[in-house]
Amino acid sequence: MISPKKYARAAKRLPKGFKTVNEFFNYVYHDEEMIWMGQNTNHLHEENDIMYSMLDSVKNKDYCKYPPPEGFPELKDLILKDLDLTSGHDIFVSAGGTESLYLCMNDILESTDNVITCDPGYLIIDNFASRFADHVTSIPIYNEECGYKMTPELVRKNMDENTKLVSLIDPLNPLGTCYTKEEIKEFADMAIDNDLYLLHDITYRDFAREHHLAAKYAPEHTITTYSFSKIYGMAGLRIGAFISTPEIVTSAKSIVINDLGTNVVAQMGALAALKSKSTWLDRIRDTTRGNQKIIKKAVDNVEGAFLPVYPSDGNMFVIDLYETGVEPIDVAEFLLERKIFAREGNYTSKLFGHRYLRVSFSIPRAGVEKFAVDFQDAIETLRPK
Amino acid sequence: MISPKKYARAAKRLPKGFKTVNEFFNYVYHDEEMIWMGQNTNHLHEENDIMYSMLDSVKNKDYCKYPPPEGFPELKDLILKDLDLTSGHDIFVSAGGTESLYLCMNDILESTDNVITCDPGYLIIDNFASRFADHVTSIPIYNEECGYKMTPELVRKNMDENTKLVSLIDPLNPLGTCYTKEEIKEFADMAIDNDLYLLHDITYRDFAREHHLAAKYAPEHTITTYSFSKIYGMAGLRIGAFISTPEIVTSAKSIVINDLGTNVVAQMGALAALKSKSTWLDRIRDTTRGNQKIIKKAVDNVEGAFLPVYPSDGNMFVIDLYETGVEPIDVAEFLLERKIFAREGNYTSKLFGHRYLRVSFSIPRAGVEKFAVDFQDAIETLRPK
Repeated sequence: MISPKKYARAAKRLPKGFKTVNEFFNYVYHDEEMIWMGQNTNHLHEENDIMYSMLDSVKNKDYCKYPPPEGFPELKDLILKDLDLTSGHDIFVSAGGTESLYLCMNDILESTDNVITCDPGYLIIDNFASRFADHVTSIPIYNEECGYKMTPELVRKNMDENTKLVSLIDPLNPLGTCYTKEEIKEFADMAIDNDLYLLHDITYRDFAREHHLAAKYAPEHTITTYSFSKIYGMAGLRIGAFISTPEIVTSAKSIVINDLGTNVVAQMGALAALKSKSTWLDRIRDTTRGNQKIIKKAVDNVEGAFLPVYPSDGNMFVIDLYETGVEPIDVAEFLLERKIFAREGNYTSKLFGHRYLRVSFSIPRAGVEKFAVDFQDAIETLRPK
Repeated sequence: MISPKKYARAAKRLPKGFKTVNEFFNYVYHDEEMIWMGQNTNHLHEENDIMYSMLDSVKNKDYCKYPPPEGFPELKDLILKDLDLTSGHDIFVSAGGTESLYLCMNDILESTDNVITCDPGYLIIDNFASRFADHVTSIPIYNEECGYKMTPELVRKNMDENTKLVSLIDPLNPLGTCYTKEEIKEFADMAIDNDLYLLHDITYRDFAREHHLAAKYAPEHTITTYSFSKIYGMAGLRIGAFISTPEIVTSAKSIVINDLGTNVVAQMGALAALKSKSTWLDRIRDTTRGNQKIIKKAVDNVEGAFLPVYPSDGNMFVIDLYETGVEPIDVAEFLLERKIFAREGNYTSKLFGHRYLRVSFSIPRAGVEKFAVDFQDAIETLRPK
């Protein structure tokens, strides 16, 4: 069996032939045959209005000019409408959801504050929190008891008088768990009662079967972060936003980094994406959900492997490999040779990264079918005799 | 006469009909007739390889995928080659030169450090410096004695034992002054002798008649920031970079914000821009320099107005209006009604903003000719009787 500590070292090993992380990603990016199941990106958009709108923008040389610093007003309005948060909320458009997370945490957190996150989770949140807060409590949630998510009960147990912010990734990267209306209400009440903020990262919202916004129940205590990287298929354009009360958005603006705005081509794509959403949303959801079933079947065939969360409410989930005795990083490397990019667990967990492989499945079905075959091969090939 | 204090209040006045800065910029952005002389943007690129390369990237749906976090290796190499800084240097690509400025200052500065900047200058640098350092000394340089730039002598006078970073914007926004080889060498020696850093912002380098890199003389004590917004005409794409020793770049990476990289369409455009530079550079420089002459002639016709720096080594300069008795903000508003976007001084100066209008001239000649007429009209119309 593999200890987390040993794994942490192993995880630093780059796939053969690469000297740096940047070189590795450059290789994955440029290999046209590569099947992208490694970064929760969405490869299911056809030639559509998003593409046409960006082509028009480039042809029009929009890119010579600086955009308005906070985002095109029409785009801001459409995002708020998409969430039905039109009244009492303001919004700021940024270079990816990541920049929004950074700005909000920089704005909200003081050096005496504590932050609550979960493990597994999206580790850049912990990283940002640790830059601005006193202490980050990352609650282990990789177990059936809590349903593989950070429950209100767990947060209550881990809170103290200095807790200022609770990070809710919903649906949760990498597990695909999602909150019920009752849970969101309970978090909202907790935020109001304890005067703390919920950082509600809804990057994967549109993949969920059902989704509820904390901003509806605790508008004064919620910051919602939004991304165009996943359902909209625009990861490489780096565009996102955050939504909160006008007071919080105004305060965060005072510590803005890019005072010259967010990429105009990305904004034009985002506008078209919101306007055309109803024409492609169901197809992308259906394909993504169908793809899950194919992977589930393959995993069920492999002794010792299982899916902690199924179905996932995101476009990704994790495959637990612990009982197979195979290291996730070895599986990722095996798959890479077969032109499949997947992610070993340490990318999203400090505590459980040695247990699982994360795969995303918002890709054409043929790629998922290849994965189903190659994954079984990988485990059979690598399994200790 | 107008005091700086009164001006600071006046400057908060937005042009008629606008409630927020964002609305104002949105209007300017979307008005197809607007002549852009307000943000040092470059509107002289024809349909060219930069555009074609971005169109291809969009058609190829590159934007579904995340790029390598530090920038495409080919792009990094080409920028270093453009500066002839290939040996002993590393580079990081970011969402605009602005993000590079932020990352470098966040990395270098401690809360006990002092920073030296100049006024007029690019105020976001002062803003960032004030977030991370103890004190920012902004040296007044708006006078003939120092040649409208921050000289080595002025820096020496304003240094103290805690000075950690000197910001050199070169050529200088908004004045268009530029450093000689001797001055750059002197700054370099000063940095080495006093163990401080030069933040060499070379955004306008390619417009200069002659330009020298501090990184050549004090490589261990220089951070060079690079932008695709000006000579490359790609302001709205938000792409830039910083270059320094591998040690400094590695250190700055540890506090990166966007760990998912910079917009891929922008990077593809940047690659094409560097590869095709020799085919368009001279034409753009020549037009920009010719445009200066047209404005000079108009200014010479206006009693009380003058150009502190002429010719400018940037794609902008300032027109001093103090003796005309007309407020720069009123001129900017007058011009806006004639569909010319220019910038009142307070955008680039806390001390001298009441004195000048800043205009950029990397636009087609016809726009500059219209400006020449309308500027004279503006002063005659607004001049106190």
